[in-house]
Order: sequence, then C-alpha cells, then structure tokens
Amino acid sequence: MRHIDEQDLDDLAVGAAILGTGGGGDPYIGKLLAQQAIREYGPVTIVDVDEVDDDALAIPVAMMGAPTVMVEKLVSGDEILSAVDAVAAHLGRPMTHTIPAEVGGVNSVFPFVVAARRGLPVIDADLMGRAFPELQMVIPTMYGISATPMAMADEKGNAVLMTTIDNHWTERFARSVVIDMGASAMITLFAMTGRQVKEATVVGTLGLSQELGRIVRETRAAHGDPVDAVRERLGGFRLFTGKIVDVERRTEGGFAKLEARMEGLGPDVGRTFTVRSQNEHLVAEGDGVAASTPDLIMVFDTDSGEPITTESLRYGFRVTVVGAPCDPRWRSAAGLELAGPRYFGYDIDYVPVEER
Amino acid sequence: MRHIDEQDLDDLAVGAAILGTGGGGDPYIGKLLAQQAIREYGPVTIVDVDEVDDDALAIPVAMMGAPTVMVEKLVSGDEILSAVDAVAAHLGRPMTHTIPAEVGGVNSVFPFVVAARRGLPVIDADLMGRAFPELQMVIPTMYGISATPMAMADEKGNAVLMTTIDNHWTERFARSVVIDMGASAMITLFAMTGRQVKEATVVGTLGLSQELGRIVRETRAAHGDPVDAVRERLGGFRLFTGKIVDVERRTEGGFAKLEARMEGLGPDVGRTFTVRSQNEHLVAEGDGVAASTPDLIMVFDTDSGEPITTESLRYGFRVTVVGAPCDPRWRSAAGLELAGPRYFGYDIDYVPVEER
Repeated sequence: MRHIDEQDLDDLAVGAAILGTGGGGDPYIGKLLAQQAIREYGPVTIVDVDEVDDDALAIPVAMMGAPTVMVEKLVSGDEILSAVDAVAAHLGRPMTHTIPAEVGGVNSVFPFVVAARRGLPVIDADLMGRAFPELQMVIPTMYGISATPMAMADEKGNAVLMTTIDNHWTERFARSVVIDMGASAMITLFAMTGRQVKEATVVGTLGLSQELGRIVRETRAAHGDPVDAVRERLGGFRLFTGKIVDVERRTEGGFAKLEARMEGLGPDVGRTFTVRSQNEHLVAEGDGVAASTPDLIMVFDTDSGEPITTESLRYGFRVTVVGAPCDPRWRSAAGLELAGPRYFGYDIDYVPVEER
Repeated sequence: MRHIDEQDLDDLAVGAAILGTGGGGDPYIGKLLAQQAIREYGPVTIVDVDEVDDDALAIPVAMMGAPTVMVEKLVSGDEILSAVDAVAAHLGRPMTHTIPAEVGGVNSVFPFVVAARRGLPVIDADLMGRAFPELQMVIPTMYGISATPMAMADEKGNAVLMTTIDNHWTERFARSVVIDMGASAMITLFAMTGRQVKEATVVGTLGLSQELGRIVRETRAAHGDPVDAVRERLGGFRLFTGKIVDVERRTEGGFAKLEARMEGLGPDVGRTFTVRSQNEHLVAEGDGVAASTPDLIMVFDTDSGEPITTESLRYGFRVTVVGAPCDPRWRSAAGLELAGPRYFGYDIDYVPVEER
C-alpha cells in the first residue's frame, strides 16, 4: 500500500502509454485528469493484489472509443461516478476498490479520478497487461467472468446500463452506443470480487508502468538510450529504427485504424517497415512479420524514448519499434481466439516475438 | 372497466392494425400472443383513463424494430417482464397499470401479455393515436415527459436500461441497440403517472380499435363495404382504389422502408398512385400529394376490408387507400416538428387531409 504523488503520476502515465502499445489515450491527458482529481479530493492509495480481501468489490473504469476523439472530450468525472453507482446498485453491494481495465495513457490513470473522489484505493493490476481495442479482450473473459452489469456514460448526461448473455454481446451493444455518444464514453464493467481479481488480472502493472516511466526519465537525464533501457526491462526486441514516411488513418466503427509506413535509418538503412493498428498496434512487418498481437508492439520517439500513441503518429517522426512478450495467458488457445491476429482479420499464425 | 375475451381480441387486433397505418406489426401475431397469455395467466381488464388514480404508475410496453423481423421472433414474455421490473426499480415504485405505446397490430395487444402475467389492468389509451416509426414521436414528448428510464430486452436474454437527456437521444441509442439485437426488441419507456396519462395520451384508442374491428367483421357479414364503413367512422376520405403493380422494399437502419405503386380500378381507372412508408405509411401521392404524415394513411384489402401492414403489401393486391385526420396535437408546430413530412425528408408542407 502506497500513496501516489505528482512525479509518480508523470512516470505512471508515460509507462502506461508504453505498455498501452499505441492505445489507451494520450498520457498527458490522463495525467492531467488524475492530478486534478487528487488536488481537489485528496491523495490516492495503491494497494497490491494480496492486500485485497477475497470478498472485496473491485469495479474497473475506463474510457472507451477512438482515442482521437477521447482527447477532445474531457470530463468532470460526475458521469463516471453515476456509472459506478449504477453497477454497484445492480449488484446490491458497495464498491470497495477500483482497478484499471487496461494499461494505457488515459486508462491506467482514469481510475485515480474515481478513487480520489470516493476515497477508495486503486488495485495495482489490470485486466490485460496491455491495451486492446474490444471490451471482451481481457483475461477475465478467459475465466468466464461477465463484463456486465456494464454502465456507460457520456459527457452530456446520457447513461446506459446493460446485462448481456456473453462478453461479445457487451462489446457489440457498447460499440454501437459509444459511436452514438460521439465515439467516446466513460465505461465501467467487469466488476469482480477480490478473489477474482487475484486470479484473473495481470498483477503489478501500475508499478511496472511507474518503473518504465522512471527508466525513460532517468536514462534520458543520464544521456543514455531510453528505448533500449525499456526494451531490456521488458525482455523485448528492437524490431526497427527509422522515419515515418506515410500514415494512413481513418476512424471506423468507433475505432481509430491506422497504417504507418517507415523507412530505415542507422542499422536499418535501406529497409522498410509497416505498423498496422486498431487503437493499438497489432502487426509489425518488415521482411515478413516481425511481431503480432497479442505480443506488445511499441513505437517510441527514438531520441526522447517517449511512447507515441496511435493518434499522435505523424509523417517525419523518427521512431524505434520494439516488440515484447505478452502475458502468457494471451498465448493460450483461448487467448489467441480472443485477440490473436486472425481475430483482427490478419491471415497469419501467431508466433511468439522471441521466436521470430 | 371491462374484461376482454377472445372475440374482443380479434376485433381489437384488426382495428389496431387499421389505426396502425401499416406499422405496429401483424394483427394475427399480436392476437396469438395475447390469447396465449390470457389462457395461461387469466383474463385482462381494460380501464378507462378516468378510472386511473393520479399517482398510478403506468408503464407502456411495445415491440420495437422492423415489423418484417418482429413476426419471426416470437417471445415468451419473460424478457419484457424483466424490462418492466428494471424500469419500476429505477423509479423506486411498483407498476400499477400498463398501456399501449402506440396503436398497431402487435403493439396494441402486446401490453395484454404483461397485464395477464402480472394481473394488472391495461389503460384504454395510447401515446400516439396511431403508430409512428421513432420512439420520440409520441404526444408525451410534446408535454416534456421523458422516454427514460427505458429498458430493452431481446429474446436471447440481453437487457439494456438507459436514461437520456432527451427523447431524441433515447431513439438514437435504442435504434442502434435494436439493430444489434437483430432488428427487433421488446421495450418499455415513457413510464407515466396517472395524472400524466390523462393529459398526454390519446384516450379511448383500445375501445376505438375494438369498434373498428367489429365494424369490419359485421359489415363483411352483411355483405356491405367494410372499408367505407371504417372510413365513415373515422371521418376519413377514400384516396384511391386500385391494384398494386410494384413494391420496392428494404430494411434500412432498423426500419422497413417501402414504396408501393398502384394502378387505378373502378372509379380510379387510368390513374396511378404511390404510398411511401417507413414502418408506417407516411405519404400518399396521386396527382399531387393526397395525404401525408401525421394524418393517418390506411391501406385496406378492398374486398375483405382487412388492413394491410407494410410487411404484407404485395404485387397484385387490390387495395383501397383511405386518409383520416390525426389527433389534433399532431397538427401543432411541436407535433409537425416531431412527425411532419419534413422530419422524414419529404419536401412538402403539411396540409390536413380534409383540406386536400
């Protein structure tokens, strides 16, 4: 159990944007949201999974939609509190903790808004160990945990509560509503007992995010190579270093879809490389596939080591692409069915990044 | 206050399909649903609006979606009871009555399923005095009454509860979800106090439907002209008599859209006529516009006097088209903004059918 201060939040937001593999929103926005809540409502405590009682009620909160839109629709937080209350009322039990639904610039930090305003702790874990674009793509789905009761709220005051027969239906309804809400909404789903949290989450990802953010900051201050320091900490692989020469993007079906083409620099001069994304980076290809979902594909500003989110990728950026292993449960048959390359329409077999 | 028997239900379903102006579903399906519920759970009582206490809680129920799909997805009724319970729980008060949301073959009779199963009376009124394709198109909207809390349920067991800032948002979210649910869903919305029911509904439309059904049945038995008898009772106008020569239909955005072209017979030989519909018949055109929404445009089988719903219109049918005045509140500025011809994209001014 520990408090989180402003420096921690800075580090956390940067590290979460790294693990968010392009999705989960802009770390700067996420940080502002959380800082404002903590200033107004008091400090937030992070607890480890083993400090959570088995019969606790942890309610994850997140922003859903296209990150391109998310950053334009900052919110007061009142709506997400109503959404949390609707879920707790439906379950007939009070919320005891909140927890990030995914790792990502906004979505790792957004729970701190709820935690600050309610005086409740945030659990150091998340449901993916990265970010993914669809709601059912979480480890709790593999454990048969229901996404519903799920509540959604927009910044205008509209609210939706749903119970569905499986988590794919949750995604389907929520995706339609989020498009109607203007391609971005606050959501709360996958309410879990403490016992379920211990079994069905990726443990320690807030702490890991903070550590990665600190590594970037300190390595940069020491004039080292921050990207390589992060790569090493994650047991990852440098896939490509180059310059972005073309970015094709569209917001489609509530998602930010993108294809970024790069030309090599330094050790990669003469090579080309492509990263394909749907909110998150899903496939990285040079001479053949270099890495694919569910492994982590991360795009960094080569010099600063700052992660670049999908919505910020631009022509001319000098970038380094790193691949790193995902949580091993994503590599199971059930995990690949949920979030393997074929689910996203790529006709390629998943091969762990360390074997490519 | 009166009980309703099988003959009453037959008449009611036919008369409601007449007032439903092509929408609201097949009267045969509606009748079967209600008869089955009454056989299983006991008789249903209809009460007049002035028998309802001011602080009663009336919860309308309906089927939403494309009637072409509705008839294929018959339901047990369990889901609509859960939806009603979700709305009552949200309001913190028990339901005392149900009431049809609109007049229509299925939607006038569907409330009897809920009434039979809960042992509660049905109020002799509805929210439109006809049927309309979008949720906000009801007289309560003109009185500032909220459509929400609104609950939706499908036959698979999925359920959605929403609260929105206005009734156009309710339509927007519900339309998306109903498409996801397979273009048809059970809904409950516009919960009202008895006081609101007295002010903001069209009174007596169940009784009127029953009377119209009886007129068709008895006139036919007496070898009279049932269409003309109905026209007279409604103070309406015969617009065209002919044969359907072309029907163009598509299910689009959760609606059944249709254009039926006719060639004249009898007094209309040599003339052509077109009826355009979106679930309901919206515009009737011969030599210029003959009638338009919000007035009632009804298409009858010329010989039997049976109303023909949008989904049943076919090449070769011999039909008579009748126009009749709508509830006067639909002719107000607010009413025309909600459901006048321009709302549906027709560039014509509304002129009351009796002045055309």
